[in-house]
Amino acid sequence: MKLYNFFRSGTSHRLRIALHLKGLDTEYVALDLRKEEHLQADFKAINPQQLVPALALRDGTVLIQSPAIIEWLEERHPNPALLPRDPDARAHVRALASIVACDIHPINNRRILEYLRKNFSADSDTVNAWCGTWISAGFDAIETLLAADRQRGDFCHGNTPGLADVYLIPQVESARRFKVDLTRWPLISAVDAACAQLQAFRHAAPSAQPDAG
Amino acid sequence: MKLYNFFRSGTSHRLRIALHLKGLDTEYVALDLRKEEHLQADFKAINPQQLVPALALRDGTVLIQSPAIIEWLEERHPNPALLPRDPDARAHVRALASIVACDIHPINNRRILEYLRKNFSADSDTVNAWCGTWISAGFDAIETLLAADRQRGDFCHGNTPGLADVYLIPQVESARRFKVDLTRWPLISAVDAACAQLQAFRHAAPSAQPDAG
Repeated sequence: MKLYNFFRSGTSHRLRIALHLKGLDTEYVALDLRKEEHLQADFKAINPQQLVPALALRDGTVLIQSPAIIEWLEERHPNPALLPRDPDARAHVRALASIVACDIHPINNRRILEYLRKNFSADSDTVNAWCGTWISAGFDAIETLLAADRQRGDFCHGNTPGLADVYLIPQVESARRFKVDLTRWPLISAVDAACAQLQAFRHAAPSAQPDAG
Repeated sequence: MKLYNFFRSGTSHRLRIALHLKGLDTEYVALDLRKEEHLQADFKAINPQQLVPALALRDGTVLIQSPAIIEWLEERHPNPALLPRDPDARAHVRALASIVACDIHPINNRRILEYLRKNFSADSDTVNAWCGTWISAGFDAIETLLAADRQRGDFCHGNTPGLADVYLIPQVESARRFKVDLTRWPLISAVDAACAQLQAFRHAAPSAQPDAG
């Protein structure tokens, strides 16, 4: 499988974590978003949405959108499972993931911040305040949901890493970049520390990628 | 089940469509977002994220985040199915849904537009241009993906309504509100017309809700 991605992209990062947790190897294809390589015609032919990540299967099928790809991984490569078995617990874990996937990450990604800089003359403090607003709102909700979950363990849900951790860790990384003070969320910080011990998360980290820099 | 929602909320709308397609009745609980009823303490106790929709089950469990709730519906009430059986096809349909769920809707929702008005002094033309940018980028990608799908039928994928339609139709409704010209996307428009014939979509429409106005 070919993984089209960028070391610092949060959606690429979450997909790399899922792939490493599943023990799946991929060929790493880097697209430098800073050079707008994702906007070139050859990548548009691979992913019409011109966003990373995309996963090209051996038969040529291209999967796009990290939430769709990660659910596909769970269906095609069920072990180790990223989701619990019980549907209510699955809904809880998917809700944690969706808070990041829908209500934090897309609002802070590259194309949005470029729009703010270009059309609203936003400087770096204004951009950090924008990102901090949505990260804080989402993390406040996640922290409350983690506190209320009787099955919280070393990780977001239970004592093995799962879907919620896959989404949360890249968002914590991004929060650090936007200078958000993480001490406000001790449970999220504890999950982050637990994940940092695991090889799958270390190998998927932006700084560990061949295009990092 | 109690459905906490708001007639005009796109995420509420998509969940209502899924519930109607599954033939499930709910008790409708309206929260008027214009009066900030979702920001009151009593709703925060139900959903710490203070967003609609939320679905309270008979045992008191509250499900939040429409993508998580819709996957739960598919698991607990599998018939009629909203997703195809084949994992690659499921990934395709989920990708279409995710383009709306992650890369269009959250960027244009109420709290973001309020921030633009308040912090960037955005007027209604500026807000419409903002929304039009993200709707157009997403719809361009969806239109291309629909054109390339050999299993496209009357609906996004095949000849029965499914997950992609559940997400797409509320976004089309929202595009109309933000004065986006839909003639640019004939395949999306055809799906919209097909869905408009179905009772599940009619009953889920914002204008058909008790709090509409």
